[in-house]
Amino acid sequence: MRIVTMEQYSLENKQGNGFQQNDFELDKTVLGIIETVREQGDQALKEYTEKFDGVSLEDLIVTPEEFEQAQKQMTEEFRTGLQKAKERITAFHEEQKEKSWFIQQEKGILLGQQVTPLDSVGIYVPGGKAAYPSTVLMNAIPAKIAGVGRIAMVTPPQKDGTVNPHVLVAAQEAGVDVVYKIGGAQAIAALAYGTETVQKVMKITGPGNAFVARAKKWVFGDVAIDMIAGPSEICVVADDSAAPEFVAADLLSQAEHDERATAICVTTSSVFAEALQQEVAAQIEQADRKLIIEQSITDNGRIILVDTLEEAFQFVNELAPEHLQLMVDNPMEQLPFIRNAGAIFLGNYSPEALGDYMAGPNHTLPTSGTAAFSSPLGVYDFMKRSSIIHYTELALQDVANDIITIANAEGLTAHAYSIQVRKAD
Amino acid sequence: MRIVTMEQYSLENKQGNGFQQNDFELDKTVLGIIETVREQGDQALKEYTEKFDGVSLEDLIVTPEEFEQAQKQMTEEFRTGLQKAKERITAFHEEQKEKSWFIQQEKGILLGQQVTPLDSVGIYVPGGKAAYPSTVLMNAIPAKIAGVGRIAMVTPPQKDGTVNPHVLVAAQEAGVDVVYKIGGAQAIAALAYGTETVQKVMKITGPGNAFVARAKKWVFGDVAIDMIAGPSEICVVADDSAAPEFVAADLLSQAEHDERATAICVTTSSVFAEALQQEVAAQIEQADRKLIIEQSITDNGRIILVDTLEEAFQFVNELAPEHLQLMVDNPMEQLPFIRNAGAIFLGNYSPEALGDYMAGPNHTLPTSGTAAFSSPLGVYDFMKRSSIIHYTELALQDVANDIITIANAEGLTAHAYSIQVRKAD
Repeated sequence: MRIVTMEQYSLENKQGNGFQQNDFELDKTVLGIIETVREQGDQALKEYTEKFDGVSLEDLIVTPEEFEQAQKQMTEEFRTGLQKAKERITAFHEEQKEKSWFIQQEKGILLGQQVTPLDSVGIYVPGGKAAYPSTVLMNAIPAKIAGVGRIAMVTPPQKDGTVNPHVLVAAQEAGVDVVYKIGGAQAIAALAYGTETVQKVMKITGPGNAFVARAKKWVFGDVAIDMIAGPSEICVVADDSAAPEFVAADLLSQAEHDERATAICVTTSSVFAEALQQEVAAQIEQADRKLIIEQSITDNGRIILVDTLEEAFQFVNELAPEHLQLMVDNPMEQLPFIRNAGAIFLGNYSPEALGDYMAGPNHTLPTSGTAAFSSPLGVYDFMKRSSIIHYTELALQDVANDIITIANAEGLTAHAYSIQVRKAD
Repeated sequence: MRIVTMEQYSLENKQGNGFQQNDFELDKTVLGIIETVREQGDQALKEYTEKFDGVSLEDLIVTPEEFEQAQKQMTEEFRTGLQKAKERITAFHEEQKEKSWFIQQEKGILLGQQVTPLDSVGIYVPGGKAAYPSTVLMNAIPAKIAGVGRIAMVTPPQKDGTVNPHVLVAAQEAGVDVVYKIGGAQAIAALAYGTETVQKVMKITGPGNAFVARAKKWVFGDVAIDMIAGPSEICVVADDSAAPEFVAADLLSQAEHDERATAICVTTSSVFAEALQQEVAAQIEQADRKLIIEQSITDNGRIILVDTLEEAFQFVNELAPEHLQLMVDNPMEQLPFIRNAGAIFLGNYSPEALGDYMAGPNHTLPTSGTAAFSSPLGVYDFMKRSSIIHYTELALQDVANDIITIANAEGLTAHAYSIQVRKAD
């Protein structure tokens, strides 16, 4: 893992503008799939499942027997871990629940904001080797707390027609109402527009491959979606108080996700930088996912030496990392200097993996610098607001002429008339 | 305006699935514009402005002299109206400002949510005849309250190279930092990716034509955007307590926006329905924008007769209208039955036009049924959240084995190791 100065880093990484690539071929394929599902419904879903997942399914819905079977395959340890994770995720997300509110103004005016849950939501959960029960919890629990009426889940079936048992158990634990064995763009189309078997939902959340991400972008507007995820990143700000073996392990835990993942440590200490460099090299040798990690660290992993923490924080705010670890003296005092980051982990005993599974806050975080303008997935993503306006006759008279003036200035005379007709004689 | 039963209405309006039309030709044009602006910057902006707006500009930024000129053209009435509107919009939106929060858990655990403003935002304001100063206030004031550092505005210039003076005065009043004379997809591209003159922003909000809407959809992900707006609608639920001349005026005020606008009244009273029908016919004759209104009412305007308010509310929740007026006895008591609506206006003296300009809540509302899954524009659109996680060594020990179990179940062994390395001996 190379040690560089901030200048060197900036030269190497001239900020691109935007991570999205336009790929008309991909878009055509994805739109073709969406249109076919809209036209042919279940039939299309089954054909795509045969084509892409290599399995012919009679029934798209996971049965109670399949859930039972999955439960039987769990170890006691996994069950306990999942239960603990659920409790802690629930405790944190309960705090996010927004309340409706009202204010009163002069002459009987009442204004407010009514907060209500979405009627339904669909969660995409990737299948195959990357089957993450934690993703199920992180998406379904906030929806449940919001009060969503119907939580559907889609996930591609394995070649034998089953779904990963850990994922099924997590779905049951988190209160998912129905699980469909569908993946890819076809699953997104089914959730957005409905088929004979799949009921349309109001919002689609959850991670997926390029097909899924692109399909979500296309249906966005007809349904709501969460963020479009790009490659993810961790940035550790460290001083001499940080333990090199901890920081190395955290960088590697990010790097093992994906060759495109970014793991960066910014430090004010050259002694620490060198210790970290050695530790990273040593730990890579021991890692199971060594090839992915090596590639990711070589391409995107850097130790950046800076003179001051101020400089480090400026870098962080420009990077807007998904995960930020502040492994410095009194990290809590540095919090006000951080503007852009998905999740901020403080101190030596708050590694990213703690947040991925157990601490409580959501692990679905804005990636690729989008933390500069978006938030972690939360209960607020599964609720919406309606404005409430109540004016009395008396209150309206006070503003009637002003509204008429502005409406006329905009050329909207029927707007003006709707006030005029209510004016007292 | 035709009076129909709910059955007849349902037959005529078999719910389409999704309002977005895929139009590859439009998309290609829009993407071409975006790419050209990314490559050629200001030069491209000037060329497109010449091509689309018919004016050759030296300078893209509105000068202090132009603001001064605009101020001079204002009437005292308009200035007063704008000032009042600003005060009321500010008062309501102040209530939306979210606070950071922290919770403590056992053994020194500290979790939280830090709320911070976006660094910058860009507001699109349509030009030409449809120049709406109210749009400026409704977009800029919440951004200002959120604490956004830099508020930019783009709006297409008129043929003489100037910007509508009402819009400029509203921009100054609302605290916009810079106004660019650019419109269309090229303005969205400039805001999303930056040029020599235009600084990139983090989020783009505001209404626009098909080019603008499509460009926003394409840059979404690289920057944040507000909702993609479709045709708008009003739904009035009325009983015998409603005044037909008021309801007619409100329906027409929506219809004058656009031939595609929808104005519907659902009523339990056939006496009221007939009185409303007559009143609508009479008011159309007097309206300035008669042709637009007539078209809109003929195509999409209906009076729907129902037996019960319950039936009416079921319809409302399926329609998820942008504007809902409850003109029934004790409207406040009916509020709990409304799940899906952008803004809810209560009683005879709370017409939509009051909300468009003056009441305080935002007039940028989810259209075309998207109120089922999204919210009015608000201060929350200009802020983002970061999760805060602080565990102590002691607290981490309690959950270390559980995290290791789940991480291993997911095959992410470097995640497991980052916990393992922190376990007490």
